[in-house]
Amino acid sequence: MSVNAAEIKILEEEIELDNPIFIEALPGLGHVGKLAADHMIDELGATKFAEIYSPSFPPQVLIKEEGIIGNMLNELYYLKDVGEDKIDLIILVGNTQALSPEGQYLICKDILDFVKGYGITRIFTMGGMAIPQPVENPNVYGAATDEANIEILKGADIKIRSNDGGIVGASGLFLGLGLRQGIQGVCLMGETPGYFIDAESAEAILKKLSLLLNFEINTDKLDERAEETRQMIAKAQKMEQDLINKNNAGNADDLRYIG
Amino acid sequence: MSVNAAEIKILEEEIELDNPIFIEALPGLGHVGKLAADHMIDELGATKFAEIYSPSFPPQVLIKEEGIIGNMLNELYYLKDVGEDKIDLIILVGNTQALSPEGQYLICKDILDFVKGYGITRIFTMGGMAIPQPVENPNVYGAATDEANIEILKGADIKIRSNDGGIVGASGLFLGLGLRQGIQGVCLMGETPGYFIDAESAEAILKKLSLLLNFEINTDKLDERAEETRQMIAKAQKMEQDLINKNNAGNADDLRYIG
Amino acid sequence: MSVNAAEIKILEEEIELDNPIFIEALPGLGHVGKLAADHMIDELGATKFAEIYSPSFPPQVLIKEEGIIGNMLNELYYLKDVGEDKIDLIILVGNTQALSPEGQYLICKDILDFVKGYGITRIFTMGGMAIPQPVENPNVYGAATDEANIEILKGADIKIRSNDGGIVGASGLFLGLGLRQGIQGVCLMGETPGYFIDAESAEAILKKLSLLLNFEINTDKLDERAEETRQMIAKAQKMEQDLINKNNAGNADDLRYIG
Amino acid sequence: MSVNAAEIKILEEEIELDNPIFIEALPGLGHVGKLAADHMIDELGATKFAEIYSPSFPPQVLIKEEGIIGNMLNELYYLKDVGEDKIDLIILVGNTQALSPEGQYLICKDILDFVKGYGITRIFTMGGMAIPQPVENPNVYGAATDEANIEILKGADIKIRSNDGGIVGASGLFLGLGLRQGIQGVCLMGETPGYFIDAESAEAILKKLSLLLNFEINTDKLDERAEETRQMIAKAQKMEQDLINKNNAGNADDLRYIG
Repeated sequence: MSVNAAEIKILEEEIELDNPIFIEALPGLGHVGKLAADHMIDELGATKFAEIYSPSFPPQVLIKEEGIIGNMLNELYYLKDVGEDKIDLIILVGNTQALSPEGQYLICKDILDFVKGYGITRIFTMGGMAIPQPVENPNVYGAATDEANIEILKGADIKIRSNDGGIVGASGLFLGLGLRQGIQGVCLMGETPGYFIDAESAEAILKKLSLLLNFEINTDKLDERAEETRQMIAKAQKMEQDLINKNNAGNADDLRYIG
Repeated sequence: MSVNAAEIKILEEEIELDNPIFIEALPGLGHVGKLAADHMIDELGATKFAEIYSPSFPPQVLIKEEGIIGNMLNELYYLKDVGEDKIDLIILVGNTQALSPEGQYLICKDILDFVKGYGITRIFTMGGMAIPQPVENPNVYGAATDEANIEILKGADIKIRSNDGGIVGASGLFLGLGLRQGIQGVCLMGETPGYFIDAESAEAILKKLSLLLNFEINTDKLDERAEETRQMIAKAQKMEQDLINKNNAGNADDLRYIG
Repeated sequence: MSVNAAEIKILEEEIELDNPIFIEALPGLGHVGKLAADHMIDELGATKFAEIYSPSFPPQVLIKEEGIIGNMLNELYYLKDVGEDKIDLIILVGNTQALSPEGQYLICKDILDFVKGYGITRIFTMGGMAIPQPVENPNVYGAATDEANIEILKGADIKIRSNDGGIVGASGLFLGLGLRQGIQGVCLMGETPGYFIDAESAEAILKKLSLLLNFEINTDKLDERAEETRQMIAKAQKMEQDLINKNNAGNADDLRYIG
Repeated sequence: MSVNAAEIKILEEEIELDNPIFIEALPGLGHVGKLAADHMIDELGATKFAEIYSPSFPPQVLIKEEGIIGNMLNELYYLKDVGEDKIDLIILVGNTQALSPEGQYLICKDILDFVKGYGITRIFTMGGMAIPQPVENPNVYGAATDEANIEILKGADIKIRSNDGGIVGASGLFLGLGLRQGIQGVCLMGETPGYFIDAESAEAILKKLSLLLNFEINTDKLDERAEETRQMIAKAQKMEQDLINKNNAGNADDLRYIG
């Protein structure tokens, strides 16, 4: 096994899914994709069936509620018979992405190989798209691996990004890796300033996703969820800032190498 | 063998330990954990039984007393029949941690696999927790892999960290890797500004550890030990600062690539 | 397969080439080499026969015209019976180079091994050479693996770079790797300030290359092509700058690790 | 073969050396060690018998005199029957060191394994030691793997560095790796401000080395050699500075990823 690869721990064997759609929503700009996917998982009652670890994730653990420690990880959930069309979904969420370019490529490749085993036919990736300042009704932009999907996006009143740079990280790589293997894919990007947990942007892409996949979802609790995440991050940032202040004042870095 | 893995050199074979507890205390914030563990090793007379090297450690050697060169390394010690309950301990100390995320994960994994061979049942990791300025009586905070251990920590009047970010490096990773394999663990963190060798904070966590594991330890020499380390680091920092000043003034970096 | 290696996807098997010359022109300073090679491919009607991917490329995809996603990749084209001497060419172009030193070396090595299978006899690499400000008629500088080729360059009125540092990236490494295997090579470098798409510099090296290889090429559309690339990059830069502004203002980085 | 390993190309087989001493002098602070070793190779007429390449070296080539391209590499020379005691030497020089920590460790390990095949019994490494400003008669400092060698250094009026940080890079790692295998070693460090090619410091360590190994060497041409190297580096630095100025002014970095 490669140093940078994903270690996939299967929690539920023998799941039968009917041509599932694969949805990626790992942490990124404004937490837009992640917030939307976490909400879907809760509201629609998705089941976790695999956990993914990697030596390319940040070398740390998180302290959750009540002092309980949690690993950096990605998680796979499934949903069956969603919406009018009774489609099956596999959803990738988590608290991190790989730190190194090689790690990014190899983890996405390993996960894609794994979910291909369930017969996935399309990929949706969700993330944020940077805008200079908050807007009242954030737009949703799209990009796709092929023209047919661009037409579908236009049919849902999704704006098309064009000729303007890249999609960095898992939201880009899953589409690129899919493209090389003939799996069609779409990226939905909600406008966000990116420096706060953006519930409005998450709601905007969730509405477009439910329109595209023909299911209904209540978004009332989305704001509440965003607020919780905000508080947790504010705490973490404060702690980190304290650390940085100290490190700049003294020479804590030096302590690292000399015993 | 992976590029980033640990190379474990066993110094004493066939050690018999009875369900030992594994204690990690590698260099980190304020040298709190390391200072506490080094003191335990000296005071209780622990025996070194393995040395650990890795290509992911900083690419250098250290100059010790009298000009003698020493490698960057981690070390494993054991203690038998400690305290009232006659428990056995394996203690991990050293002068460095891995530089890269992958190195951090893989070295911790290799060491954990190795000490599991001795039948370890619990993991204690020790480190510092950043506070803005020095306090007279530093608090000890804790986190754990499970609720039962949180209760034990509370029983020893240890404050519980909650929802506030992460534990970075070996002190976090051993708990996370243990958690994935069903090994319970606890992290003890002493409050410290982090930019000096903090004997008070080391003493505070040592007192809590001895309470939790039911052994006695004299901490009189802890201050002395902290002072020695302070002087060694001050010298090293001065040397490094001189180097940085020169490199900024001239272009020493360029010399590196052009012969 | 190594983590950093090239994955070569062959699009056309059994191509017969007669002692082809290998030309490298990946993105670099002022896009000089790339612009020249892309123009050659279009004007002379070269055929793409292989695509190259790598986990060492930037972990992202690009959004091309009309929202269609494209992978980061390198591409190999061939041309038969070019110019008076009816020489065959293999041309390496693409939208990226590897991010890491190891990736740079290993991808170049893999590509060189691959094109050696077609019997290549010489290597030409093309790039930009930094000058402080734009000049009206940029000079072309050369370097080579051996004295015979230096004489050929002088015969084409190409200035010789000497004793002044290095050639960084693929344009250097292909020559260095070739040198170790007895394959002779030449680097052509067009003067460029490097911070804009430099059609004049690209034209200058294209004229020298066509002189050296004895073929004719119309450069009328080179300016037009440069203009298109300029617009695309301006858009991408603006987007990236917006992102940087936001990240500096807030703490978007923190969002990455904490879910 | 590991990604970061050394590729050793043997130029002369079946060399018979009698318990040779291994001398390392790769580029570092003030080029002190390298300058001393290059001078020894020239003055004493050493023979090159191996070249070493690695994907962990900087990804570039150098342009030497008359536009001829040279690889980044390390080189091994040997000398037989040197000085009064007719000792044999293996000398490691080159134009670079590895960029990554893992590369540093693995290349040094590969080279040490290789020279151990010739029966080396001791290691000398040579480098610079930073001082704030130039001095008229730079001191030579030493460190060693064992007390016996410290005594030998003292006998040659070499000052002993003690308790003051580390020796970074190949000069440290060869001693550390040797120490782990029972090969004794010594590091000689000439005082140098480090930001220019320091012939005085090189001469100082060369005099100490010749005293320790009991051979004579004329150092008249050392200044001349230092001057040549200075000019070459000045040119390279100017070029690099021009590049940096441009990159800061514009956005040349962006050109890298977008085709």
